[in-house]
Amino acid sequence: MFESLPGFRDFYPDSCAGRNHLFRIWRQTANSFGFSEYDAPVLEPLDLFKEKSGPEVVSQLFAFKDKGGREVALRPEMTPSLARLAGAKASSLRRPIKWFHIGEHYRYEKPQRGRLRAFYQFNADILGEPGPGADAELIALCIKSLTALGLTAEDFRIRLSDRDIWLHYMAAFGIEGDSAAQALDIIDKRERVDRGVTLEKLAQIFGDSAEDFFKDVERLGKAKDLNRLKDILLGPDSTCKSAGNSDQISQRLNDWKMLLDQLDAMQLMPYLEIDLGIVRGLAYYTGFVFEAFERGGDLRSLAGGGRYDGLVKKLGYDDLPATGFAMGDVTLGDLLARKNLLATFISAPDIFAILGGAEERKIALADILALRENGFRVEYALKETGFGKQFKLAGQSRAKFALIYGAEELAADSVKVRDMNSGAEKLIPRDRLNTELLEIRETGIPLEE
Amino acid sequence: MFESLPGFRDFYPDSCAGRNHLFRIWRQTANSFGFSEYDAPVLEPLDLFKEKSGPEVVSQLFAFKDKGGREVALRPEMTPSLARLAGAKASSLRRPIKWFHIGEHYRYEKPQRGRLRAFYQFNADILGEPGPGADAELIALCIKSLTALGLTAEDFRIRLSDRDIWLHYMAAFGIEGDSAAQALDIIDKRERVDRGVTLEKLAQIFGDSAEDFFKDVERLGKAKDLNRLKDILLGPDSTCKSAGNSDQISQRLNDWKMLLDQLDAMQLMPYLEIDLGIVRGLAYYTGFVFEAFERGGDLRSLAGGGRYDGLVKKLGYDDLPATGFAMGDVTLGDLLARKNLLATFISAPDIFAILGGAEERKIALADILALRENGFRVEYALKETGFGKQFKLAGQSRAKFALIYGAEELAADSVKVRDMNSGAEKLIPRDRLNTELLEIRETGIPLEE
Repeated sequence: MFESLPGFRDFYPDSCAGRNHLFRIWRQTANSFGFSEYDAPVLEPLDLFKEKSGPEVVSQLFAFKDKGGREVALRPEMTPSLARLAGAKASSLRRPIKWFHIGEHYRYEKPQRGRLRAFYQFNADILGEPGPGADAELIALCIKSLTALGLTAEDFRIRLSDRDIWLHYMAAFGIEGDSAAQALDIIDKRERVDRGVTLEKLAQIFGDSAEDFFKDVERLGKAKDLNRLKDILLGPDSTCKSAGNSDQISQRLNDWKMLLDQLDAMQLMPYLEIDLGIVRGLAYYTGFVFEAFERGGDLRSLAGGGRYDGLVKKLGYDDLPATGFAMGDVTLGDLLARKNLLATFISAPDIFAILGGAEERKIALADILALRENGFRVEYALKETGFGKQFKLAGQSRAKFALIYGAEELAADSVKVRDMNSGAEKLIPRDRLNTELLEIRETGIPLEE
Repeated sequence: MFESLPGFRDFYPDSCAGRNHLFRIWRQTANSFGFSEYDAPVLEPLDLFKEKSGPEVVSQLFAFKDKGGREVALRPEMTPSLARLAGAKASSLRRPIKWFHIGEHYRYEKPQRGRLRAFYQFNADILGEPGPGADAELIALCIKSLTALGLTAEDFRIRLSDRDIWLHYMAAFGIEGDSAAQALDIIDKRERVDRGVTLEKLAQIFGDSAEDFFKDVERLGKAKDLNRLKDILLGPDSTCKSAGNSDQISQRLNDWKMLLDQLDAMQLMPYLEIDLGIVRGLAYYTGFVFEAFERGGDLRSLAGGGRYDGLVKKLGYDDLPATGFAMGDVTLGDLLARKNLLATFISAPDIFAILGGAEERKIALADILALRENGFRVEYALKETGFGKQFKLAGQSRAKFALIYGAEELAADSVKVRDMNSGAEKLIPRDRLNTELLEIRETGIPLEE
């Protein structure tokens, strides 16, 4: 007896149908937004991830040496492979590049609720367009992918933040480069850490200004609209003003206005919360960053993304501005199940054919193959057996209709179709089988006949 | 700069669309036959494959130790995982179990034409039904999956063989168990090996009878119909008759008749060749085995399968008779490309929206999102830009229609739709946008308007 590995899932037909439904909705929504699907290997050279994923992700890799001595790893995320593909053909691809991907990813983490070692992600990215129009399009796709599954603004929100604003703001304190990245990391983790500890860490970067900075962090974290942000960043007491970099800040706030105007025009503001407290842990984000999170309960993250303009160049290709998000299937699947939105997709046949004897079976088999070619899902008993047993099998299969090939019916070159729910029956000439069954599938069989 | 690993593929949007088309046809055909999709992890405990795949497959595994010290491997084939899933829930699953799978598999082989290290397979299996009705259903699915892609009996054939016949026949020579398995292996490889070498090897098993046995092998290999098989196996000079196991042989030939009668009733005989020369290398096959191979050219294998009744039990579960096949995407993809059957799926938008200025953009964005929700694929310039540039982008996108949001049109609460091929235009009231566009997508715009 064998079991699957911890953190890996078996998909029996019912759960596989649920998973495929999720994939179908993701795929349809991305297609409607003009995104094209791509794929890349699940196994890549280890260096690809070392180069660009953060150290936490690298420590969780399923990495090994292949039989040719190559250091390889199962992909923990999609972005490095995407950057590789887009970078390699950047000059010949129509801009903006709007691509999506649905596939599995692997991280050796402690399996727990909402976290597995193998999980699916829907990734969508726009490359080649640096302006906020690309960010708006992506955030819209993220929202519409969730609403297409039946979720509403009661179920989730998008938190919108901006690493650029933070960088400009910290520059006013004289903090830049690695120190700024460290500070962002501290800000990102502040809600899970004691206030005193956070202040202590910030003091190592900001010195005496740590207390002032942290007060601003908390004020910025609470600012829920653009005007309030403007007040804090450019108001009379603002550090930025005194540091003389208020021009950069107001230019950036102009990008904010463009982004919010577009999302407003798309009627998506009910899904949006400005929250500068989000800065996203991953090392490579640059401008706008966002996260879709569950409302109520434990506010788990459903999707996350943002701008990562430097990454393609960092991998050795021409510069290509980029923004993207990833949506996982695990937390989302839990939410959909709780909201009863993972429709159960019963894979019942349209038709179960009931076959008289050897002669009837012969005639039926040709019909069955023709019906299948016309898109009907058709089953029959693979072994010759009595009528009673066959009707029992038809019932167990939950088929909508039984198609009866008896000697009597076939003598008239006809077959009998029975609605398995109502019991209504109708005799159909064999040469009209496909047409009549198409109609009956739509309208049912009138009970009088 | 990075490259993907040797034997692994990148799928840019065009090739990804071709791959997805293949998956869609496989999925549709399997569904129409009443098969249900399942999935299992790509990474499994190494022992699962050691237990059941042949030594050749095991030597090609991408195997390693995970961070928890577990010996694991990327799946080289689907059957062991399938047997695990079906075995574990055998008592609660409706019989026969008809399942299919589409997914990737991994073998460390020398990459060459038609052979990669990562390849997709369509696997279909029937478990719980020991009779030839299950084999017929599977062979029919195999054929119909290929014809649904546009292939004909000119392009491929199914070679049908039977390990049972061979085992009964060898038993007449007193050869059973491991010796019989070895002999089958020699028979399987005989066309790629010098006749003398084959005879030498057979002599180690059959002693003085090797020459006689090999003559029969060659006669059986040439037998193209059931009557000829009967003659060789049960005719007056037959070894089986003298060995007294002709009852088992004639019972087995009765199974053959049942199988062929059903395939004949399904009108599939034009696709079929009896060829006892095929015995399939894999260790676990039992009864009927078959292979779909290309005609003309180098007769490469497109799919292969057969009965493997002992496997589920061997993995430690209750006995469950089983038959299945696997169809790979690599050789098949080559063939489809050569036959021009891999339709190029151009991912062009239905509509490219042309936006006047900031005000028009606002109105358009709401409409665009509504059209997308109704299933239209809609693009627009993510950055504000002039009409001329936008029409150029629309042309490059290969959109079928442009939807023009100018100040003039919007003053009349309308938008103009233009057929990008004919240049025909029509003004549409905004509140009838979806309805009119649905119609125009079907019928086009009359040139007079």
